[in-house]
Amino acid sequence: MQIDLNADLGESFGPWRMGQDEALMTSITSANVACGFHAGDPSVMRATIRLAKQHGVAVGAHPGFPDLVGFGRREMRLSTAEVEDLVLYQLAAIAGVAGAEGVRLQHVKAHGALYNMAARDAALARAIARAVATFDRTLILLGLPNSALLHEGHAAGLRIAAEVFADRTYEADGSLTPRRTPGSVIHDPARVVERAVAMITSNQVTATDGRVVSLRGDTICLHGDTPAAGELGHQLRAGLESAGIRVAALATTL
Amino acid sequence: MQIDLNADLGESFGPWRMGQDEALMTSITSANVACGFHAGDPSVMRATIRLAKQHGVAVGAHPGFPDLVGFGRREMRLSTAEVEDLVLYQLAAIAGVAGAEGVRLQHVKAHGALYNMAARDAALARAIARAVATFDRTLILLGLPNSALLHEGHAAGLRIAAEVFADRTYEADGSLTPRRTPGSVIHDPARVVERAVAMITSNQVTATDGRVVSLRGDTICLHGDTPAAGELGHQLRAGLESAGIRVAALATTL
Amino acid sequence: MQIDLNADLGESFGPWRMGQDEALMTSITSANVACGFHAGDPSVMRATIRLAKQHGVAVGAHPGFPDLVGFGRREMRLSTAEVEDLVLYQLAAIAGVAGAEGVRLQHVKAHGALYNMAARDAALARAIARAVATFDRTLILLGLPNSALLHEGHAAGLRIAAEVFADRTYEADGSLTPRRTPGSVIHDPARVVERAVAMITSNQVTATDGRVVSLRGDTICLHGDTPAAGELGHQLRAGLESAGIRVAALATTL
Amino acid sequence: MQIDLNADLGESFGPWRMGQDEALMTSITSANVACGFHAGDPSVMRATIRLAKQHGVAVGAHPGFPDLVGFGRREMRLSTAEVEDLVLYQLAAIAGVAGAEGVRLQHVKAHGALYNMAARDAALARAIARAVATFDRTLILLGLPNSALLHEGHAAGLRIAAEVFADRTYEADGSLTPRRTPGSVIHDPARVVERAVAMITSNQVTATDGRVVSLRGDTICLHGDTPAAGELGHQLRAGLESAGIRVAALATTL
Repeated sequence: MQIDLNADLGESFGPWRMGQDEALMTSITSANVACGFHAGDPSVMRATIRLAKQHGVAVGAHPGFPDLVGFGRREMRLSTAEVEDLVLYQLAAIAGVAGAEGVRLQHVKAHGALYNMAARDAALARAIARAVATFDRTLILLGLPNSALLHEGHAAGLRIAAEVFADRTYEADGSLTPRRTPGSVIHDPARVVERAVAMITSNQVTATDGRVVSLRGDTICLHGDTPAAGELGHQLRAGLESAGIRVAALATTL
Repeated sequence: MQIDLNADLGESFGPWRMGQDEALMTSITSANVACGFHAGDPSVMRATIRLAKQHGVAVGAHPGFPDLVGFGRREMRLSTAEVEDLVLYQLAAIAGVAGAEGVRLQHVKAHGALYNMAARDAALARAIARAVATFDRTLILLGLPNSALLHEGHAAGLRIAAEVFADRTYEADGSLTPRRTPGSVIHDPARVVERAVAMITSNQVTATDGRVVSLRGDTICLHGDTPAAGELGHQLRAGLESAGIRVAALATTL
Repeated sequence: MQIDLNADLGESFGPWRMGQDEALMTSITSANVACGFHAGDPSVMRATIRLAKQHGVAVGAHPGFPDLVGFGRREMRLSTAEVEDLVLYQLAAIAGVAGAEGVRLQHVKAHGALYNMAARDAALARAIARAVATFDRTLILLGLPNSALLHEGHAAGLRIAAEVFADRTYEADGSLTPRRTPGSVIHDPARVVERAVAMITSNQVTATDGRVVSLRGDTICLHGDTPAAGELGHQLRAGLESAGIRVAALATTL
Repeated sequence: MQIDLNADLGESFGPWRMGQDEALMTSITSANVACGFHAGDPSVMRATIRLAKQHGVAVGAHPGFPDLVGFGRREMRLSTAEVEDLVLYQLAAIAGVAGAEGVRLQHVKAHGALYNMAARDAALARAIARAVATFDRTLILLGLPNSALLHEGHAAGLRIAAEVFADRTYEADGSLTPRRTPGSVIHDPARVVERAVAMITSNQVTATDGRVVSLRGDTICLHGDTPAAGELGHQLRAGLESAGIRVAALATTL
């Protein structure tokens, strides 16, 4: 048994700091690095990739909508050609910045609203998959289990990785309970660790209605937006390893 | 004798059109394509590169300052690290977009204020040269003859190409007469052609004070910002070829 | 009988020109001036307002989504608070620029996707109406006839103006035929003039299925995105005046 | 004797937080609120102004260069017309947002590189003063003592206020010691308070070479970029008041 731990990093922009990049680097195995459209700038990208390299963390692209002020979290209705081109642009930019630090990209995870829309919208998912496959057929595409994004990624000949969440509850259909539902986000580190271990060892999760749902994840997402993120990361990694689960980057586990 | 003809293309942005890209493609041999910071967007970049490929025109990166509203023409005082990183980002982005169209970049020409500042400022020139050399050591770096940019490009181990202007007058020190000086921009196509042929065949130009100045150019810049640009391009190319000068892309002439 | 003629102007941005502002100023009575979020910049705004003043054309704000590359034409899912604040910001900015030219704003017309979304979405419409009413209760709010936007504008105590299109066909429910439907955009100037006169004199329009629909317009929108826009403007104004319809700015006709 | 205490606030942007706005509001008397070009967005502006109102803190505009990623700290060479128009735009935008909260602007302080360039460059200073005087002749213009900005503000008929720094050392010519010089920034709160009291009671400061320099300040700038800013603010205000100096907003002290 093995699992990847990923987190969204490099989300600072110009003078503004965001996230717990340093603290998370010691527990995660894959870093999703913002590419300058929803967050990040060329210098932040480079510094983040350098830091990931120092910690032996694999680097992935985290392309998003062109919406800094909204942090790529607001739905935008773009044409599929626009999405394909802006994902390609962002992938290429970060791959080049990574190359300057002697790092080769491992994966791609779309950000925020783009990720969520592409989970449901096959045409959008196809545009993203096409951009990735055109740019570099060896990149691993992340997405929600059973999402349109993973389906289209697979159809495009890409390796795909299913992302699960240990700090979120699930519904009986395998979807995440919306954040606004009370109790949908789990804050107790001990419970998060316990859920993660259970998910990975059983390939199942207990939904909010008590039903047991099948759910296979290749990578667990760690949120970096709380000061406690680093500590949670350490506990999660330690808990997984104590349970005999190998924690390693996607490229070595898929 | 041979010469390259270059022009700045792909300077549209979103809904806004700029330039005479279609008209120029039939006479130029190298296209400097904007990379999204001073002009261009991912879809404009891709369409421009596709057009260049159709016409057999070599493609180069045209990175600029992050200043859309000022079109990269306004001086900005950035740190050399900032310049290195944003040039690297732009090079990588356009190389990836070009790759998606099966096109490999030939060259790099900095845009506007970045180009002019780097002609004089060795530290800035070094930052640009470093970004280019780090990204792809085979790219040809364009610059003004005897500029800091070409000097630093050469020192960084890059192939360099000197850019001359057939529609501008020169001073006795080999510099361009400032645009605001009356008569510094030559509008008569016949005179432009005549000057271009003279420059390339003699490696000399007659300065405004009548002195003859040594000036060796590898590429002539064609301005695309007038409706007559396409026609001037045709006359220039025809004139050069009639004079026995081979017009071909830099990669084949350097 | 009287009518206002409006057009979207000031849609240039930095070095990029757009529209037929000069040509339209001699026929329209109200100018919707972009406010810097989807198009326009402080200097373009000021020059446009100065031009409107010279021609005695009333000036309105034309606020849009923060999406330059998409020209505010792409739907964005913002919170109502975000929409209220960014409309307020744009109104205030352009009112101040107009004030510097001795011009007082007459009206507000939301742009592109914001206009279309607010026609259907009451919460969004309310956010816009609230921004306008908070900023200046004397401003006239434009919208599609029977739209949520006009409804909420009226509820907020604003004067409202219904906008109709002489170069577009209508459906039996009073909505515009989508642009992608063949024949939905009328290019023949004579027919546009004829339809405009019929609409204003009868307060009716014949829908695509032949049914006669009641449609009362306070202002006709003139599109400025074709080279022929100026000429169409002249014909339309002349045609309306020949039919005994007074063409005058909203503030004098409502 | 009386003095104003000002700080740069509202420098968050979209999802990114910056500054100690809450903590500073209880000690300062004037808030310089970013206007969306170098920092701030419509919703951040509005929330900041609401907070200032709750604390009885006067609100001013803090316009800057259009350079988010560089936070308006990088010199940009704009035309004076461009500067005048973008300052006007920003003033109007924030005045409108303030008006929606029932707040009237008190003052204008240019930000970062714009402030520093306008201290030396009379044409730039004139452009800023013209924008302010055109928009609202009652606004107070802040600047460095003896700067071109205050000179041109006065010439334009504006009330002006000289800004001094209690946490920075001065040179014998009355200028600030550059930040990069070791010891130029004073971190010990007790010394900052002592210097502030001495400056305001004596209208003098001891320069780094020991000479006593005449320096009259109307407002002291408090930096908000350290976690300790709030505590320093309280100590400074308490120290000034203990020394019998009235701390009050500019509009009541000039």
